[in-house]
Amino acid sequence: MACCRGLNLDTEVREDVRRRLLSVKGHVEGVLRMLETDQVYCVDVLKQLKAVGGALGKVGDQVLQSHLKNHVVTAHERGDEDLIVSELMEILKYR
Amino acid sequence: MACCRGLNLDTEVREDVRRRLLSVKGHVEGVLRMLETDQVYCVDVLKQLKAVGGALGKVGDQVLQSHLKNHVVTAHERGDEDLIVSELMEILKYR
Amino acid sequence: MACCRGLNLDTEVREDVRRRLLSVKGHVEGVLRMLETDQVYCVDVLKQLKAVGGALGKVGDQVLQSHLKNHVVTAHERGDEDLIVSELMEILKYR
Amino acid sequence: MACCRGLNLDTEVREDVRRRLLSVKGHVEGVLRMLETDQVYCVDVLKQLKAVGGALGKVGDQVLQSHLKNHVVTAHERGDEDLIVSELMEILKYR
Repeated sequence: MACCRGLNLDTEVREDVRRRLLSVKGHVEGVLRMLETDQVYCVDVLKQLKAVGGALGKVGDQVLQSHLKNHVVTAHERGDEDLIVSELMEILKYR
Repeated sequence: MACCRGLNLDTEVREDVRRRLLSVKGHVEGVLRMLETDQVYCVDVLKQLKAVGGALGKVGDQVLQSHLKNHVVTAHERGDEDLIVSELMEILKYR
Repeated sequence: MACCRGLNLDTEVREDVRRRLLSVKGHVEGVLRMLETDQVYCVDVLKQLKAVGGALGKVGDQVLQSHLKNHVVTAHERGDEDLIVSELMEILKYR
Repeated sequence: MACCRGLNLDTEVREDVRRRLLSVKGHVEGVLRMLETDQVYCVDVLKQLKAVGGALGKVGDQVLQSHLKNHVVTAHERGDEDLIVSELMEILKYR
């Protein structure tokens, strides 16, 4: 298991990611409220969903940067570079 | 305002979108719980964020399809095609 | 066949798209030249590929906008809205 | 300059990337030919552009994987990890 290799998300980044993700959750709740009324315009919903997706993408950037910095650049020293590269490509690959 | 043109999201689609978005919210809450412990692996977070993004993308597809079907294909008849096209391009354009 | 419905790409847009696509081709040829030497840095290639992808995305935007404006907003009048929506969703859907 | 750090694209990968990119170029030329006739359907062009984008994305994956494997996982040992991470994030970041 990945967990057991001790490659944990940096504590400070984890706090930042939690804060951002709480904001994403609040944004999703906002869209859910929009959807409670029957007078909601499709394009307004699409705009909100796009904004939520963008916020989520930025959360991902934080985690990715932290992972690169703390775990990927040291993978050869640890000797787990094959696993590190293959699991990263699984996430980053073009669709 | 867009709202005032009466181009509302179809009721049935709205219900489906709400259900899916509630599930997205639950998924985000799951990631938030992951982030409460200090033994969370970056790649596991990235995988979850990617899955949330995918679910969000599918919600967007539902709204987009409904908008195309109910409002875009009839825009010329209504006479608001310039607005319809420009606001849609704002959402769909490549970055 | 789609071709036979006479929904052709607007001539002016077609010319613009050709010009842009010729530039994309030139850009790809530039990357091919980069790859002829054995002293090419991965990140420089990635940057160029990203730029090519961006240019390609803008070409797509031109075609999409023209399609929306000339064919999609009039689909209900023509009576082919089901086909128009389904083939458009095939292209626009989230992955 | 990045070039001067000697972090060159692996020769074998470079050959594979060239082959794939030549095929992308051929594909772009095919779309250019489509655009020479005045009976070309927007959606057919969009489909081809999407396919070209997909092929380009796969070329990028090859280069990225090679970069991760050959240069990123050893960055800490070399001591250029700050540069490696920042230039990689510039390419990978969400829009």
